Amino acid sequence: MDYERYYLDLLEMMNSSFKKIASGKYDKKDVERLFELSKTGRYPHIFAEMAESFSMMVIKVEARDFHLKQLINELEETKLKTT
Amino acid sequence: MDYERYYLDLLEMMNSSFKKIASGKYDKKDVERLFELSKTGRYPHIFAEMAESFSMMVIKVEARDFHLKQLINELEETKLKTT
Repeated sequence: MDYERYYLDLLEMMNSSFKKIASGKYDKKDVERLFELSKTGRYPHIFAEMAESFSMMVIKVEARDFHLKQLINELEETKLKTT
Repeated sequence: MDYERYYLDLLEMMNSSFKKIASGKYDKKDVERLFELSKTGRYPHIFAEMAESFSMMVIKVEARDFHLKQLINELEETKLKTT
């Protein structure tokens, strides 16, 4: 097996997913590919860890977006009561 | 120059920054190191791009945290008016 080529392919795949997600132009499949990469045991440790860290950032952003949506709704309802 | 060793060192440095930031236990220096890595021209293209994508996720999280803080303040003030 050509390990150098394999590592480079993994790096490029990861870089491509990172770029799509960071730009905001991504779909479920891009995130799933990242989750798949983060499975330790299947991929070299360092790649799995990097994919896992990035996945955690995706989850952080999504959780905050969810919270923001809730707060905006709550704020609108509260404002309605004051008028 | 031993390129293989250099690439592995860069990967490990990046992985270490990613892990610290994703876990939430990081300081300004960790983010600065990532910004430094994302400078194209100074580091191999693929590393710079990955560091840049991760930096963008850090900024997304920080921007949302800032927005959340503002909304929480606004909500508290609005609620005070209704009581």
